[in-house]
Formats: sequence, C-alpha cells, structure tokens
Amino acid sequence: MSNIDIFIWEFLGTTVLCLLGNGSVAAVVLKNSYSHGGGGDWLIIVLGWGFGVFAGASIAAPSGGHINPAVTFAVALSGGVPWSSVPVYWAAQLLGGFVGASLCWAAFKLQFDNNGDNSGTRGIFCTNPSIPNKPWNMVTEIIATFVLIIFVLLNPVANASLSFGAVTFVIITIGFALGGPTGYAVNPARDLGPRLAYAVLPIPGKAGPDWGYSWVPIVAPLIGAGLAAGLAAILPAVAA
Amino acid sequence: MSNIDIFIWEFLGTTVLCLLGNGSVAAVVLKNSYSHGGGGDWLIIVLGWGFGVFAGASIAAPSGGHINPAVTFAVALSGGVPWSSVPVYWAAQLLGGFVGASLCWAAFKLQFDNNGDNSGTRGIFCTNPSIPNKPWNMVTEIIATFVLIIFVLLNPVANASLSFGAVTFVIITIGFALGGPTGYAVNPARDLGPRLAYAVLPIPGKAGPDWGYSWVPIVAPLIGAGLAAGLAAILPAVAA
Amino acid sequence: MSNIDIFIWEFLGTTVLCLLGNGSVAAVVLKNSYSHGGGGDWLIIVLGWGFGVFAGASIAAPSGGHINPAVTFAVALSGGVPWSSVPVYWAAQLLGGFVGASLCWAAFKLQFDNNGDNSGTRGIFCTNPSIPNKPWNMVTEIIATFVLIIFVLLNPVANASLSFGAVTFVIITIGFALGGPTGYAVNPARDLGPRLAYAVLPIPGKAGPDWGYSWVPIVAPLIGAGLAAGLAAILPAVAA
Amino acid sequence: MSNIDIFIWEFLGTTVLCLLGNGSVAAVVLKNSYSHGGGGDWLIIVLGWGFGVFAGASIAAPSGGHINPAVTFAVALSGGVPWSSVPVYWAAQLLGGFVGASLCWAAFKLQFDNNGDNSGTRGIFCTNPSIPNKPWNMVTEIIATFVLIIFVLLNPVANASLSFGAVTFVIITIGFALGGPTGYAVNPARDLGPRLAYAVLPIPGKAGPDWGYSWVPIVAPLIGAGLAAGLAAILPAVAA
Repeated sequence: MSNIDIFIWEFLGTTVLCLLGNGSVAAVVLKNSYSHGGGGDWLIIVLGWGFGVFAGASIAAPSGGHINPAVTFAVALSGGVPWSSVPVYWAAQLLGGFVGASLCWAAFKLQFDNNGDNSGTRGIFCTNPSIPNKPWNMVTEIIATFVLIIFVLLNPVANASLSFGAVTFVIITIGFALGGPTGYAVNPARDLGPRLAYAVLPIPGKAGPDWGYSWVPIVAPLIGAGLAAGLAAILPAVAA
Repeated sequence: MSNIDIFIWEFLGTTVLCLLGNGSVAAVVLKNSYSHGGGGDWLIIVLGWGFGVFAGASIAAPSGGHINPAVTFAVALSGGVPWSSVPVYWAAQLLGGFVGASLCWAAFKLQFDNNGDNSGTRGIFCTNPSIPNKPWNMVTEIIATFVLIIFVLLNPVANASLSFGAVTFVIITIGFALGGPTGYAVNPARDLGPRLAYAVLPIPGKAGPDWGYSWVPIVAPLIGAGLAAGLAAILPAVAA
Repeated sequence: MSNIDIFIWEFLGTTVLCLLGNGSVAAVVLKNSYSHGGGGDWLIIVLGWGFGVFAGASIAAPSGGHINPAVTFAVALSGGVPWSSVPVYWAAQLLGGFVGASLCWAAFKLQFDNNGDNSGTRGIFCTNPSIPNKPWNMVTEIIATFVLIIFVLLNPVANASLSFGAVTFVIITIGFALGGPTGYAVNPARDLGPRLAYAVLPIPGKAGPDWGYSWVPIVAPLIGAGLAAGLAAILPAVAA
Repeated sequence: MSNIDIFIWEFLGTTVLCLLGNGSVAAVVLKNSYSHGGGGDWLIIVLGWGFGVFAGASIAAPSGGHINPAVTFAVALSGGVPWSSVPVYWAAQLLGGFVGASLCWAAFKLQFDNNGDNSGTRGIFCTNPSIPNKPWNMVTEIIATFVLIIFVLLNPVANASLSFGAVTFVIITIGFALGGPTGYAVNPARDLGPRLAYAVLPIPGKAGPDWGYSWVPIVAPLIGAGLAAGLAAILPAVAA
C-alpha cells in the first residue's frame, strides 16, 4: 500500500474516531444538548468512544485500521508494517485527531456558544487526570494501553470486520475498568490532535490546553504498546 | 428487483424502524410508561433507535435495507441502484415512516390519552433542535449523516446481516456523539413521515408539527449523503 | 426430532430464559439486591431479558430455539414444524416458565423474605399493564409480537447462533420501544408459567396473580404471531 | 498443549479478566474516579465484567479460554481436558486473579490513597452477600454458575471468537439477573485471587478479607459446574 493510501485511510478513520469520541463527551458535558443530564453519562462516553473505534477502524480497514500511533508502533515492532511507514501513519492519525475534534466543535457550535461556563470543556477534547500525579497517571495509561495492544496483537479473529468488533468490546471494557483515573487516552493521536484543536478553536471562556500534562498520554501509551509487543514476541506461537 | 418488491420491502422495513425508534422516545417521555423516570433516558433512546435500524434494515434486506432516503440517494449516486428506482424507494420510506409512527401511537394510545400535558410530545415523532439556528443545525445534521453514509459506502463487510449489525453500531455512536444538538434525524423519511403522522393523529393537547424546521432534516441529510458519495468516489479503491 | 428431544430442549431453554428474565426484574425491584437503586433500571430489565433470550434460545437450538409458544405457532403456520409437535413445544415452554421462575425465586429467596413489602413483586414474574384497558393492552402486545415474529420469519441469517444474536437485538429494541405500556410479554409461556409460579411460591405478603389480565398476554401474542405468519406468507419470496 | 503453555495462556487471560472486572467495580466505588457518581453503576459493573470475560477468554484462546476453575472442572468432567492438566489450569487462574487485582490496585492507586474511607473497598476485589446466609448464598451461586456452564458445554458455535462473544452475552445476563444477591462470583479464581490480593495490598483503612465467607464462592461454583456437566452428559446428543 502506498504512503498516500495509508495517509488517506488513517486520516479518515482517525477523523471519524475523534469526531465520535469527542462528541460523546460533548453530548453529556454541554448544557444545551438533549443527552445532557439524563443519567448514565459514563455509559454514554464509553459506549460512544467504543463504537467510535468500530466506525473509525472499519473505515480505515484498507490500511489496517490502526487509527492509533500506539497500535502502529506495536505493529511495527512486530514486523507488521515497515518502519518507513510509521511516520506516515502517525502524521495522518494526528491530523485526523485535529480535524475530527474540529468537526465535533462545529457540530456542537451552538452548544459551546451558549454553554455559559466553558472552563470545564477541555475534557471534551483531551484527557486529564482526576488526581494529578504524573508517575501514577503514567502507570494507569500504561496498563490500559497494554491490555488494548496485547489483545490487538493476539486477537485470533482473522476476518477484519469481526476483528474490529472484538477490539470495540475490549475498548469498552477498558473504558469502564480503567478510564476513571485518567480518562483513558490509550492513543496519543486521540489526545494530542484534539488538544491542539482545543487550543486554537474559538470557544468562548475556554481553559488552557494543559500542555504540562500533554506528554503523559503520548509517552505512556507508547510504553504500554512496547511492553505488549515485547510480551507477544516471547509468548508461544498463538494457536489459530 | 421489481418496483413493487422494492416498495414492499422498504415500506415494511421503514415502518418497523419508525415504530421502534419513535417508541423508544415515547417510552421515556410519556408518564404512564414503565420505562419513564428510571434514568438512562438517552441510552434507551439511542439503543432503541440503533437496534431499530437493525430490525428494519434486516427486514428490508431484499431491497438493500436502505430504509433511509439519504442512503438511497448515496447508493444511486454511486451507481448501486438506477435513478428510476429512487422515487419508489423514497415513497415507500416516507409511507413507512408515517405508518410506523401511527403504530407507535396505537401502542401508546392509553399513555398519550392519560399524559396530562402533551405539549412536549412532538419530540417522540420528529426532531427539533435544542437551540434553533438553521445554518448550524444543518451543519450538525450534515456531519452526522456524512459519517453514516461514508460508513455504509465503505463498509467492507460482505455478508448482509453482519453488515446491518455494523451499521447498527455506527448509528448508536452517532446517536451518542452527534444526537445532542438536533436529535439526529440523519434520515428524511424518519423525520417527515412521523411528523406528518403527528400532525394528523388524535393526540389531545398536542403542539404544532413545526413545519418551519421540517425541511432541515430533509435537506441536510441529503447534502451529507451527497458529500459522502462524492468522497467515496474519489477515494482509492477499497481493499477487500 | 423426537417429541422427547423437543420437550427437553424447549423446557431447558425456556427455563433459562425465565430464570434470567425474571431475575433481571427482581434485581432492580427487591431492596436487598446490589443492583437495586443504582439507576438505569429499565436498561437492566431490557438487556437482561434480551441476552436471556440469547442464552435460552442458544441452549434450545437443537429444537429450533423457539422458547415461545407464539414463535412455535407462527413456525407451524409457516409449515416449519408439524402441528402434532405444537402441544409438545407448548407444554415444555410452559413448564420451563414455571421452573425458571421458581429458580429465580430460590436465587432471591433471602431478598424476598427481607423485602418488607412484597405487594409489588408480581411484576417480577409476569406482566401487567401500566394503564389497564384490555382492548388497547391487546393492541400493544399484538404490535410488539408482530415485530418479533415477522423478524424471526424473515430473518435471512442462516447460521443459527448468529440468528439468535439477531433476535436478541430485536428483542432489546422491542423492550425499549414497546415495553413501557404493558411490560412486553410477547410470549405466553414467559407470562403464564411465572404467573403460576408466583401464585404458589411462598412469598410473604405477595399480591394475587391477577388472573383477570392473564389471558391478554396469552391471546395477544398468538394473534400477533398469526398476523405476522400471514404477512410472511403473502410477501414475495425472500432474497437470500 | 504443554503444561507451560496452558499456564501462560490461562494466567494471562485471568489476569486481564480480573484487572478489567475489578477495575469496573473500582470505577464506580472510588470517589476520585470520573466514572463515580454518574449513574448506571450496576450497568458499568456488569458490562465491564462481561466484556472483560471477552478480553480475557480471547487472549487465553490457545488453552481453551477457560479463565475459570469451574469451567475447567466441567470441561474435565466432560473429557475435554485431562485431569492431570486441571491443577495447572487452576494454579494459573488463581495467580492471574491475584496479579490482575494487583494491577487494578496500581491503576487506581491514587484513588485508593485519596478515597477517605476505604472500609467498603473489599467489594472491588471479591464478592460478599447482600444478606449473609451461607446455604442460600450457595443456592444463588450454584444456580448462576449452572447457567454459565451449561451454556459453555452446549454452546453450538464452533468458531472460538464468536463463542467467546456468546459467552460474554450470557455472563452479562447472569450479572443482571443473578448478581444482585451475592455479587455473582461464578468463578473461584476471580474471587479468591483478588481476595488474597486485597489481604496483602497496602490500602489504607481497608476492611478484613472476610475469610469466613471466602469458601462459598469457591465451593458453590464447582457444585454448579458439576451439576451442569452431569446434565450435559445425560442430555441427548446436541444437534449441530
């Protein structure tokens, strides 16, 4: 597959992922949204992100449906894609995160403009820890990403579409089980792309993008992915 | 497939879609319903509509399971059905929306008659924006429909039944992520058919059908579908 | 398949169905249950019943996974099983409903005994209308069962296990969309079997079994099934 | 498959299961977690555990994906694995439960340390009855495990990945329907492993591990598994 093809599919898939994921948080955070205040907020966020992965990965199926730099890193470590393609994947994913977040803002523009107090809207776009402590926040993100990547690498389902459904189920349980402490980035592009969008979008009264924390959801998922790829390499060959 | 067959399947599928979708909103809006007041309203609405798409599209599988004029429009633009069939699809879908909404009313007749105040019941049938602003409401519906249609056009799953399950997952995440601002019509028949039904059904104390907004959930989904079909046409060939 | 085999599989499947379905209602109704009072009650009931259909129908797969006299009736009308087998199916399903409800009671015995006021516990076992009006309650149950049966008869999925998953999705949307007015029996055995169990089980301070309503969730589902079988018979042949 | 392979896969799968399952309870119990207090707690717990079974069993697919001593016991009774492998399965599962619970603690360490009152945190790790009464608590756990195991033994789905999806659906309905009274261990390793972890982890102000109850979620699931294996043995041959 050419680098242009990789770029197009990964860009499109990550755009859809972040549009739907960011949207699922906006849906419960912004006051003038029908989905606001009806209860089950965390269910909406986790299921919205989960099926958003399904939509984005399915659209990006021609390029492998990575839509996550940590997945690309682990697949490259495992020999699944050449290292020369990795920057293409990463650039497309980051741009997709930015554009997806911007489309989310457009879809909710009236809600942002009429929200009254937008100081808490950064969480719509990117993650931040409920209790700031970078080493332990790293631990949480490493563990969560490790589970995702080890599943992706070992997933015995051959058919691509069923495979994305399986990954969706795992993303959902990661969200329920491990999303509480840090908001489960588990994907550097899903965090940095929307964070950049938040920094530049015209949201009245918004807070800062918290660059001080922004490297954690980049570095920790890559570490988790590396650990998972290492484990997968030393495990016995997977039975079909 | 003959036009009569197309009409029958699309009518039946869209009837089931709107019966189940409208019903899922009625279930949480109307006071004398066991599903009223238990929390998680938006989850019930989104999951009810989502699996309602699964039921309706599966039933309409012989005609392609469109049950949405925007889908038919995009498929026709992509050469999947002849333009001469499009009016048949659209008429059947619109009639199905009307009949499905009427059956929903029949299933909940006692609840409508004993609801006390029915001034807020239009939302059971058709969409309206949480913040009225036609250009930005258009943007939201265009984005939401674009995601749906690009997925339908690119969906690599060959088996029809799995395919409808996949579309169901995407409809669910669209509902969570993009339903908050305008109620996510993303389907002209799903909005206009039930709106017509609401206008004529004997619901005591009902509000008006809001014809002023009614063209938005018709025009915007068709624009979104056209944009998605255009993008799909210029994308590289999809890898199987 | 011998009548003994039919009886065993349908009995076992309907037992599991009603154990899980009744249990999902008990889980939110009874005070000393961890699932009580946490919100999302209707979601728990609908998803519990829905996946309960999956469990029961999968276990009863050798006999077709009917676990519902209305399904058996429609399949017999469509020529799928001989009429001589119908009483065997029905007897097994009814007995399964009774035994499943009794196992549910055993699983929750401590909760029943310590519930304080059991006057509202009949709804754990069998359905009753939120607004009593037999003709319109009939309409609701007929419409709900019609949707279920037309889907079962037209369902193009050949593989049995996927098929039960598909029916599960449809049962879930029926619960969300049409369960509010009457509690969606859509299955005579699921209502009468547990109602009989409720009448005889030693639940302190229980209410009566409401025999006056009990024929509605028997007759209405059979009418809905008959209408669906009739429609399926006159529809064009289903495309694979 | 060698005993070393069995140990590695079952250990890894059960680790992931208990990390995700324990995490889903921690997510709603601990105060400084984004998923705390948003409503739908029982839905989060049941769906988190359910899809956690999917993740863990899929990862352990090479060894059969048991990740539960009661499953191994029933499969051994049915002749599916030799008795000499059973201690290997059990040891791996128990160790996985301990390690998974410890990883959950690490992911939520900040939340545990800042929770204020940790006297109610044992329920994050292991089960305890809402109403203590060992004979009836046994009944509940036996019934719940029986349903799980009879489904596993009879499950007609050949493909391993679909099969784990099917088991996931059944675990979810068991959680909704039968989890309220005792917290549904239905898996000795899932209870004892995390209970041991809770006993030794440095959680400030924690309660005791309640060893007095700890044998119930070990013995009852094994009895339920034995009863299910017995029933499966005397049932007619399962039709494919």
